[in-house]
Amino acid sequence: MILTKSSKELYTEYTHRMQKIADIKYSAAVLQWDQETYLPAKGADFRGRQLATLSEIGHEWFVDPTLGLLLQTLDERADLQEDEKRNITLSLEDYEKQKKFSPAFVRLLSEASSRCFHAWLQARAANSFALYKDELQKLVDLKKQEAELAGYEKHPYNALLDQYEKGATVGLLDQVFNEVRVPLKEILDRIAGRPQVDDAFLRGDYPKQTQWDFGMDLIRRMGFDFEAGRQDLSEHPFTTSFNPHDVRITTRIDAHDFSHMTWSCIHETGHALYEQGLPPHYYGLPLGEFASLSIHESQSRLWENNIGRSERWWKTIYPRLQTLFPGQLGSASLEQFYKGINKVHPSLIRTEADEVSYHFHVMIRYELEKQLIQGTLSVDSIPAWWNENYKTWLGVTVPDDKRGCLQDVHWSHGSFGYFPTYSLGSFYAAQFFATAEKQVPGLDEAIGQGQTAPLLHWLRESIHRHGRRYTSEELCQQATGKPLDINYFLDYLLDKYGNIYNF
Amino acid sequence: MILTKSSKELYTEYTHRMQKIADIKYSAAVLQWDQETYLPAKGADFRGRQLATLSEIGHEWFVDPTLGLLLQTLDERADLQEDEKRNITLSLEDYEKQKKFSPAFVRLLSEASSRCFHAWLQARAANSFALYKDELQKLVDLKKQEAELAGYEKHPYNALLDQYEKGATVGLLDQVFNEVRVPLKEILDRIAGRPQVDDAFLRGDYPKQTQWDFGMDLIRRMGFDFEAGRQDLSEHPFTTSFNPHDVRITTRIDAHDFSHMTWSCIHETGHALYEQGLPPHYYGLPLGEFASLSIHESQSRLWENNIGRSERWWKTIYPRLQTLFPGQLGSASLEQFYKGINKVHPSLIRTEADEVSYHFHVMIRYELEKQLIQGTLSVDSIPAWWNENYKTWLGVTVPDDKRGCLQDVHWSHGSFGYFPTYSLGSFYAAQFFATAEKQVPGLDEAIGQGQTAPLLHWLRESIHRHGRRYTSEELCQQATGKPLDINYFLDYLLDKYGNIYNF
Repeated sequence: MILTKSSKELYTEYTHRMQKIADIKYSAAVLQWDQETYLPAKGADFRGRQLATLSEIGHEWFVDPTLGLLLQTLDERADLQEDEKRNITLSLEDYEKQKKFSPAFVRLLSEASSRCFHAWLQARAANSFALYKDELQKLVDLKKQEAELAGYEKHPYNALLDQYEKGATVGLLDQVFNEVRVPLKEILDRIAGRPQVDDAFLRGDYPKQTQWDFGMDLIRRMGFDFEAGRQDLSEHPFTTSFNPHDVRITTRIDAHDFSHMTWSCIHETGHALYEQGLPPHYYGLPLGEFASLSIHESQSRLWENNIGRSERWWKTIYPRLQTLFPGQLGSASLEQFYKGINKVHPSLIRTEADEVSYHFHVMIRYELEKQLIQGTLSVDSIPAWWNENYKTWLGVTVPDDKRGCLQDVHWSHGSFGYFPTYSLGSFYAAQFFATAEKQVPGLDEAIGQGQTAPLLHWLRESIHRHGRRYTSEELCQQATGKPLDINYFLDYLLDKYGNIYNF
Repeated sequence: MILTKSSKELYTEYTHRMQKIADIKYSAAVLQWDQETYLPAKGADFRGRQLATLSEIGHEWFVDPTLGLLLQTLDERADLQEDEKRNITLSLEDYEKQKKFSPAFVRLLSEASSRCFHAWLQARAANSFALYKDELQKLVDLKKQEAELAGYEKHPYNALLDQYEKGATVGLLDQVFNEVRVPLKEILDRIAGRPQVDDAFLRGDYPKQTQWDFGMDLIRRMGFDFEAGRQDLSEHPFTTSFNPHDVRITTRIDAHDFSHMTWSCIHETGHALYEQGLPPHYYGLPLGEFASLSIHESQSRLWENNIGRSERWWKTIYPRLQTLFPGQLGSASLEQFYKGINKVHPSLIRTEADEVSYHFHVMIRYELEKQLIQGTLSVDSIPAWWNENYKTWLGVTVPDDKRGCLQDVHWSHGSFGYFPTYSLGSFYAAQFFATAEKQVPGLDEAIGQGQTAPLLHWLRESIHRHGRRYTSEELCQQATGKPLDINYFLDYLLDKYGNIYNF
């Protein structure tokens, strides 16, 4: 019967089904957003089951064999337009991957994640890994099972990596990280041998409301559309999107440290601009989705670092900042401020790390997850393993679990294989930004006048509007004319930090 | 096959299915809450379709014939426990009603409501009924269709009334309103002939943040559990619940009128205490739901009026209020304050109306809806009809649609047949409160000391814990020993206002 229908009819049916699945997925995203911003404590248990039911339906609808048949039929039709073909190819790929998991398994995972998330909140509050490990163990067991169900070559972790970054494998990531590890360590060592910069002025008494207002102003300047999104507070800053017209970011504010709020705002706005730039007419379809997590992260890191830690950009904003906090910043020059916000100093917390040592935070988590999923590291051993590796690679002593292995929320969401995309994101960011500088006339001058609209325009044209049309690598090739080249990132670091630390 | 299963097995399956339906229903409630509190403007279109998809699934699952068969089978089993039997009876009743509507029709209604809600927001902002009427017309047409699908005797409006208040009919409501209309008008007239009370001190400069803090304190004093709920701001105050552990209320604050925020807080908290008092172990089942809308409203009105506009209760709170607003209230005595907050003065806005004239607002809407659904009044004629009836019954001239027929959100939610429950709620409230005063030793003294815990305990025991076990009438009989008797309400008014206005 399906064979007698026109491609147009079938494609309409496909769109209709995919958009209903998207409604469920984004409804779950609203519940998750609420869970991390406004949910009262006792609401957690029922919220967990509500989310699990939504995950289950979304998955059930997507792995429905009649949808599979529809996709296969459309995949063989020759009379689809190019965009339609691409949507079908990608949806079929997703279908083949997803159908390996039963709705019941997806529900189990969702419920285990909710429990793990709440255990994490409690464990952090009590500063005790012991309160967390049982729920984490259950989730790790499920993730191992997930890897087996998904299937993989060589390493079970490959199955999980591929979910966040198509084509990523232990083999490829080992290679990239091996390429970058030694040069990064050398930069760190050279910086350590130079006179250190002062960033004491970033800490002090920074009233929360003034910080919030300043952050909102930054977000607006970057081009975030507040008619199509909002910012709230949460324990851990994040971006989520329910469609390109409703993109939510969060931040957290430390009344004694100005940097947390500022660069989390800039970082999340980078993510949000990408989401607001996706084509809304492809709601629910692959071409309406982001390309990959590494590309997503390239957007946040580009804004956070290439713009948000540049002297150029701060030139016009810093005077205003000084008037907001005259006591704290009145006597720090722009040059001092610029050096301070780029201080390289290996430390405990990933989200507060400088651009150089940051990648050791990622590499440590990557190694840990690899072993955890392979079964060569036990959940119980995480804190000891973590602390040892922080000592080895970053030279820091972890004083407690809160500032150690409990610092990130990702595992509690079931996200294993996610962290490597953070480093890839930085590497892509450097390459994208260098290309934009070449391709956009007067870009540096515009940024120096606080005008980032030309940059956003370039990002919208080169990256955002394509949705998931290209893989990370294809998109990189398309936007920059080359595959990912780690030297853009290393050159950027050498140039920037050579100047700051005078080596 | 179903016949061979034990009742225990079947009942477990029933529970499981009902709780999953509840997950969907409450997920939609989260999206609706977000829509009225935090949704950015452009997010409205996709939110509409997300809500429509959730309504559609929730309905589809509930009217699934296999659930019908399960309910019918369980209904005939003799070995269920009493609570189980009651759940099955009520669910089967719901099923028989709901199966008359196709999931596609439910989706249409949901989408039309979303569009109507946004048209309402715009129409209010622009103060123009013209911007609203087309969407309202579509919704009214759907509601008429709904009445036909549901079936009714005598009057199509009966089909809609029954959805909010089981057993309510035009016949019964005409009778109740006829009984109350003349005595209420007499009270209004007697008051109008007496020297008027002064409430000018309620208006003035009341800083929003101080109001908010005071409102939060009131809510806490009333026994609202902030670990199981929260308050936010919205255009129109409301209460929603995602389960008894997560009950959300909203308020609005007028910086020039202290009364809006205060009595909306108290009113919504009354609703919220009921929701927080429902048995959480019956999540998703009828015994975990509220009895009816009139009983729900009895809870909000009891707190708002019988407590929140009593001299007794304010005795301990008023001194604190005076210290918060010394310039505005410093020179108003408790007696003046008490009289001021009970000033009877027919006016334009229902939610700001006094306890006496309030019911004319309801009766006008009731008559209007009755005719609208019957087709004897057109959507176009609403403003003129409205303004004429406000002149006739309340003696006020409606200056514009915003303060006229655009003031309430209900129609935009598709809620026709809802308003009468507001009056019934007041009538039940008077009867419940009079009974509590008789049954709880020392209740008045406790309230005079600001202690409302004994009252809350009585409400929890007599009303909240029963969920939907009894109809409004049964619950009234059970809690007060009598069916609804309008004289409790009239006596309360005569006593209270006879004292205030000295007649």
